[in-house]
Amino acid sequence: MIETKGYAVHEPGSDFSEFNFERRDVGPNDILIDILYAGICHSDIHQAKDEWHDSMPTTYPLVPGHEIVGRVVRVGDDVTKFAVGDLAGIGCFVDSCRECVNCKQGLQQFCFQRAVFTYNGVERDGVTRTYGGYSNNYVIDENYALKVRPADDLRGVAPLLCAGITTYSPLKRFGAGPGKKVGVVGLGGLGHMGVKIAKAMGAEVTIFSTSEGKAADAKALGADHFVVTKDPANLEPLAGTFNIILDTVSADHDINPYLGLLGVGGSMVVVGVPEKPNTVHSLSLIFGNKTLAGSLIGGIPETQEMLDFCADHNITADVEMIDPSRLPEAYDRTVKADVRYRFVIDMQNA
Amino acid sequence: MIETKGYAVHEPGSDFSEFNFERRDVGPNDILIDILYAGICHSDIHQAKDEWHDSMPTTYPLVPGHEIVGRVVRVGDDVTKFAVGDLAGIGCFVDSCRECVNCKQGLQQFCFQRAVFTYNGVERDGVTRTYGGYSNNYVIDENYALKVRPADDLRGVAPLLCAGITTYSPLKRFGAGPGKKVGVVGLGGLGHMGVKIAKAMGAEVTIFSTSEGKAADAKALGADHFVVTKDPANLEPLAGTFNIILDTVSADHDINPYLGLLGVGGSMVVVGVPEKPNTVHSLSLIFGNKTLAGSLIGGIPETQEMLDFCADHNITADVEMIDPSRLPEAYDRTVKADVRYRFVIDMQNA
Repeated sequence: MIETKGYAVHEPGSDFSEFNFERRDVGPNDILIDILYAGICHSDIHQAKDEWHDSMPTTYPLVPGHEIVGRVVRVGDDVTKFAVGDLAGIGCFVDSCRECVNCKQGLQQFCFQRAVFTYNGVERDGVTRTYGGYSNNYVIDENYALKVRPADDLRGVAPLLCAGITTYSPLKRFGAGPGKKVGVVGLGGLGHMGVKIAKAMGAEVTIFSTSEGKAADAKALGADHFVVTKDPANLEPLAGTFNIILDTVSADHDINPYLGLLGVGGSMVVVGVPEKPNTVHSLSLIFGNKTLAGSLIGGIPETQEMLDFCADHNITADVEMIDPSRLPEAYDRTVKADVRYRFVIDMQNA
Repeated sequence: MIETKGYAVHEPGSDFSEFNFERRDVGPNDILIDILYAGICHSDIHQAKDEWHDSMPTTYPLVPGHEIVGRVVRVGDDVTKFAVGDLAGIGCFVDSCRECVNCKQGLQQFCFQRAVFTYNGVERDGVTRTYGGYSNNYVIDENYALKVRPADDLRGVAPLLCAGITTYSPLKRFGAGPGKKVGVVGLGGLGHMGVKIAKAMGAEVTIFSTSEGKAADAKALGADHFVVTKDPANLEPLAGTFNIILDTVSADHDINPYLGLLGVGGSMVVVGVPEKPNTVHSLSLIFGNKTLAGSLIGGIPETQEMLDFCADHNITADVEMIDPSRLPEAYDRTVKADVRYRFVIDMQNA
């Protein structure tokens, strides 16, 4: 077995503490990764606090972390994709049934038997619990690990594994590109990736934010326009002008004003999960052949495509580095959206 | 001017009475059509009763009718598409600005200056009111008239001009075809066209209906499966199995059970307009990369394509013929969904 040191919460609301556990031995198709960096995703916080109890109850101790970049330090006998010394990434899941129609199409996130999540999951053996990237290593089947190219800023690559693919997948699916107008609602961890990726795809990008103070950031991120949404009058002149609106907001909000901004055949995609349901009148969709869609991360092939796209376009997340002792502060500030734009834990020096 | 005899309501709730009015002279690009058949669409009834007062108030007298088939009896000097003796169809609009981006793309139903509706509209001169197909003739620019091939049952062609295109357009847009599973919610005027068209496109079609009594009709229409929706248990085994669900229901209903029937990447399209808005939780769309869309009739090119498709596949609406004296009965029975599946007025013998 592989000895691992991680950081775990032991009950809802508890602080993180060091937690030693074992990962499985490196099997013929496995690789062992020494973790360099792990991003902090808002869903880590929800699960640490067991806030998704009804749909995805938390089993404690919980070691979160599904935005992982590390270096391969051991490979199984049958491994072909990775060699010792390579960089590798791990996203939101580490295995799946491999046989259902979704797995076969490379949409493992929708595996009929449920993908094995990177943490708070159970391996396909039905008993072994998964622990995430707030730890010094991970053992994973090579087919569920992503290839990461050496980049100037590997720290900013880690958040691509969740925030990057969450925004890349719907932007690509709905055709973001030259000549297309893309709106990004919410400038946080997801939103700032959406802006960078949509710009790299060639679209004209508008950020919609409640925070006037983010105007300078919006420009720095490459957005073409910045709209403060507190005053509805700011939206009026934009009615009917967008091809795609990517809504990254997890707080309860009314999506109907944004549906009004879509042009004919336009698509609004939600990737955040507000507590309250949306209220949508059919006429808001019928007039203009409009679409309201949802999107959940991406499968392995598309996640690799996204990493390659980001490497080609020098895209990384804007990060604030912490060491594990600052996890409580990072969690508090993430909840308050007081981070530009993603905390990343430096596990190398943990 | 052209003398026309129509059937009009003169105030909300009044009965139809004969109404003589004039249409414009046949201009160089116009054709004069002697109307043979006019379908009765539920929206005729809404407008006759001024039930859409807030969004589309009714101006009386109102001559409804936007599912029109007739024969060309006069053509303007510059007309090239039609000759005297040809059959022609008229749908929901008879003109538009022709210059906006939507008109240029053949999506005239979304004209920036609002299309000129076939009835209860105002011509582009800004003053002339439009009167619909419950009348003996129509003068229309040839570019807004559709070519109709001689068919065995021209009576059943009339409803294609609204019910046909309303269902054809989204089925085509979302890829109905061989290997695809299509659900049609509601077996009425729209639904029965949706079934016929989806089957002709090669899809496997399931009808969802509250009426057990329509099982035999479903089979006769070519549906592969018929599901009575009153018992939620009937839906459970179908979870995650549909590519497209076309919701034709205008009565208030919960769309969430149908979202649950969509497979990964599936699309639900609403074409009916219930009074109450839909309540949709973001998770219902995110898990499965699902789409909720709306669709409004179609532009002139796609309406022509639909008529040609239907002619190629011998598709017409199932109709019950009436003469104008039976309009009150037809309206009552349409409201009660007591028609299989469309009333068509025989204007030839009116």
